[in-house]
Amino acid sequence: MSKVIDRYCFGADIGGTTIKLGMFTPGGDIVNKWEIPTRTEDRGEHILEDIADSIKSEMEERKLTRDNIIGVGAGAPGPVDKDGVIYRAVNLGWGVMNMQQELFRLLKLPVRAANDANVAALGEMWKGGGEGFKDLVVVTLGTGVGGGVIIDGKVITGSLGGGGEIGHIHINDNETEICGCGNRGCLEQYTSATGIVRLAGRRLKADNMASRIREGELTAKTVFDAVKEGDLLAMEIAEQFGEFLGKGLATVAAVTNPEVFVIGGGVSKAGPILLEYIQKYYKEYVFHASRDARFKLATLGNDAGIYGAAKLVLE
Amino acid sequence: MSKVIDRYCFGADIGGTTIKLGMFTPGGDIVNKWEIPTRTEDRGEHILEDIADSIKSEMEERKLTRDNIIGVGAGAPGPVDKDGVIYRAVNLGWGVMNMQQELFRLLKLPVRAANDANVAALGEMWKGGGEGFKDLVVVTLGTGVGGGVIIDGKVITGSLGGGGEIGHIHINDNETEICGCGNRGCLEQYTSATGIVRLAGRRLKADNMASRIREGELTAKTVFDAVKEGDLLAMEIAEQFGEFLGKGLATVAAVTNPEVFVIGGGVSKAGPILLEYIQKYYKEYVFHASRDARFKLATLGNDAGIYGAAKLVLE
Repeated sequence: MSKVIDRYCFGADIGGTTIKLGMFTPGGDIVNKWEIPTRTEDRGEHILEDIADSIKSEMEERKLTRDNIIGVGAGAPGPVDKDGVIYRAVNLGWGVMNMQQELFRLLKLPVRAANDANVAALGEMWKGGGEGFKDLVVVTLGTGVGGGVIIDGKVITGSLGGGGEIGHIHINDNETEICGCGNRGCLEQYTSATGIVRLAGRRLKADNMASRIREGELTAKTVFDAVKEGDLLAMEIAEQFGEFLGKGLATVAAVTNPEVFVIGGGVSKAGPILLEYIQKYYKEYVFHASRDARFKLATLGNDAGIYGAAKLVLE
Repeated sequence: MSKVIDRYCFGADIGGTTIKLGMFTPGGDIVNKWEIPTRTEDRGEHILEDIADSIKSEMEERKLTRDNIIGVGAGAPGPVDKDGVIYRAVNLGWGVMNMQQELFRLLKLPVRAANDANVAALGEMWKGGGEGFKDLVVVTLGTGVGGGVIIDGKVITGSLGGGGEIGHIHINDNETEICGCGNRGCLEQYTSATGIVRLAGRRLKADNMASRIREGELTAKTVFDAVKEGDLLAMEIAEQFGEFLGKGLATVAAVTNPEVFVIGGGVSKAGPILLEYIQKYYKEYVFHASRDARFKLATLGNDAGIYGAAKLVLE
């Protein structure tokens, strides 16, 4: 009788300052997780080497050979196509590169690479707020707005890695400020953490209405904390936020008709009240076939990326 | 040595007045096509029987047995989910029904059913304007605006058959008239054949500017004919049309990042000039990863449905 070999997969979530790494069973149990710094010097050329070295040490320590490893998945902050080619990652110093091929060369293990937001979406589907669903949209409300659109369990990468760029849906014809992407009126300009602060700043300037958010630091968190305390001005800002995001997600629903939207990122820490503001306007703008789509909060937080990266090699 | 058996597939495109039928080789050569009337009486209960009978006669005439038939695909005007359940087709008198199962019961052949616009998109990918592409969006500008979003060669059906409902993307906050779907400001209200007539009617009323479209019947065709003749008022309408559609398709691109948009339906008979107006605004609103997506005209016309329906059973 042959012995059953323990098998694992690794996930790497490459950020601008740290790389998160995780080791998982095929069933999605996390065995270990750790972080290493992202060395962006020399055009980021040490990043993949550092990942490979870190995974090799982990394998050595646990006395694991290649036979024990299903593969290594990696998410990176830039558009990544189906072949694992990344088209520039400004935060890492990378130009165009086949990161899948490069990481394979270093590890000699099956490797899959994808965009970090797409990978986080996959993580939330696997073991997070989207568990049990196969047609979903994961929206990450952080410094920017990222997204992952999943159809029948697979993330839409797009022909040039530009699938799920929900933050750059055009939503406002009257915007005068320019978005990071160069356009005007992108969803991200109103619904990211910085977007909410921008909405708040505009509203505060409009008149002298009393509000507790006039004192102290203005952040997405202070706005939604004030909403929970019944602050009327903060609630107006939340309505604006909800209308922009609800309208934007109604558009996504017209294209893909998902079962569920999973809302994550730092802003989502505001909790269920966030979903109420989004759903109110979503239902107003959405085509009837998608009217009953559910809204849930993401649950994996900063670990979504390592979960999703590991899941990439299980597909 | 065993004899090679000739194999074929059938496609049925069920419309409100006629059912188009086609017989194809697996390579996509059309062997025969014909039409039968759509009997909408008795809540449309004879429609699938008529299709089954028509296919059986065709098989008999050609001395084909079940072994010769790969399967039968059918497209119907309503939301159809992955299991072939149609959720109401008003034009046919149908309520909720598993049309795939029902047609299988009548034919005892492999059957696949899908939404008619999605099926037409598949046809254009197989043998039409989208041939050679796997990530594409097909937009049908007819009485309404239908769509099919194809990812890696497969149409996005959506969780309840509501995928690719491009005509119901919300595009205008200032609309006062109600769309057929019950919402206000849907893309369809400006870019369908009737939408273009509506845009034209509004523009004509605005002032007394001379235009050849003030005389005779006002249709999408007369508007674009006038555009080609340099009629300034008609060109203004075309700009409006282009801005609405370009902006709407930029939104679709932010979600799926396709290689190509294929524009079909009656309105597309205006030809390449239509694409120019759309692309001008598309480029203005789109996220950079999708900036270079191509725009092509559909080529199969009214046959797109039978091609796509047949292709359903080859997947």
